[in-house]
Amino acid sequence: MELKKGFFITFEGADGCGKTTQIKLLNEWLNKKNYKTIVTLEPGATDLGKNLRQILLHYEKPVSDEAEMFMYLADRAQHAQMIIKPALEDKTIVLCDRYTDSTVAYQGYGRNGNIEKINTLNEIATKGLKSDLTLLFDVESEIAQSRLGKTKDRLESQGIQFHKKVRNGYLELAKQNPERIKIIDANKTIEEVFSDVQKIIGELLSI
Amino acid sequence: MELKKGFFITFEGADGCGKTTQIKLLNEWLNKKNYKTIVTLEPGATDLGKNLRQILLHYEKPVSDEAEMFMYLADRAQHAQMIIKPALEDKTIVLCDRYTDSTVAYQGYGRNGNIEKINTLNEIATKGLKSDLTLLFDVESEIAQSRLGKTKDRLESQGIQFHKKVRNGYLELAKQNPERIKIIDANKTIEEVFSDVQKIIGELLSI
Repeated sequence: MELKKGFFITFEGADGCGKTTQIKLLNEWLNKKNYKTIVTLEPGATDLGKNLRQILLHYEKPVSDEAEMFMYLADRAQHAQMIIKPALEDKTIVLCDRYTDSTVAYQGYGRNGNIEKINTLNEIATKGLKSDLTLLFDVESEIAQSRLGKTKDRLESQGIQFHKKVRNGYLELAKQNPERIKIIDANKTIEEVFSDVQKIIGELLSI
Repeated sequence: MELKKGFFITFEGADGCGKTTQIKLLNEWLNKKNYKTIVTLEPGATDLGKNLRQILLHYEKPVSDEAEMFMYLADRAQHAQMIIKPALEDKTIVLCDRYTDSTVAYQGYGRNGNIEKINTLNEIATKGLKSDLTLLFDVESEIAQSRLGKTKDRLESQGIQFHKKVRNGYLELAKQNPERIKIIDANKTIEEVFSDVQKIIGELLSI
């Protein structure tokens, strides 16, 4: 199925929201319909990004917050320029697990970072490459945590507070970008959620 | 010689301007006078920075311009936070070979980058840590090139044009920051230049 142009679809939400499962299901569905797709993610999709991750994981001394942030932005810049952009030019549907909205939600809303500054950094890193569509898998923080295999007892109240701030950040982003960001109720079952995903993607691609 | 506070002195100028030699001479002079100093540089002063440099030097695929820039900014963030700031708090004289002005001169003026954007990135990377004094070793581009052991025949005209843009950028920065940036005529001999360096540093430290 040859498309007239590529589509850049990003998947956002808390860890445990189910987005990775939904990307897999969507990719299989699109491939069955003979659409050309790639599945990618941040951070670590490029070899450069993997190298940067290795440094961050194995570096034995403290890393300054800003150094860490710039390393993730380097990963994003390389990813956008070397993987996403060429795939879009090749009329491919790009399914990307986390992108710029993650930084705004986590570092901005979650950790009270300067959102204007983060937007500027994202803009520089991506050279303005924005997603055509973002699926936000919205889930109650307690449900997301329980899906990650943690029991309620082990949750620190600060942990859940942080996740609630991230969730509210995502919802605020969706409010600000109603055309681009579609909220999906991810409290439901995998099948129900995927049915909602199919509906939105079906409309986007007119299938 | 116990100082009341640390001093952060940066050394800027084109490759071949002689700043590395002057840092060495100045460091020896200050140590003889029992001042506590450290000599450091960008990029690659921290282990993190060295790791990032290794990636940049050995990465076999193309690296996007923005990814490279963010990796250098990560190096700067780590350097400022983990080396320069603690040394200053320890009332040390920090002699640093290249810092934020290099990025403005090379990526900004030399490669026509957006200078306002570079200033923002420098500000984020350093958390606003500025040098107390910057010595700009100003040298005719042809002299700098010849000191690097290149003959005039091998110079591409674009090469010399680029260096002239960088030089003019540095001079523009000095014009904008007359208190912080002192221009030193680096066309002269090592001894003559060092005499000028001693004069400026002597005034700064009242020695």
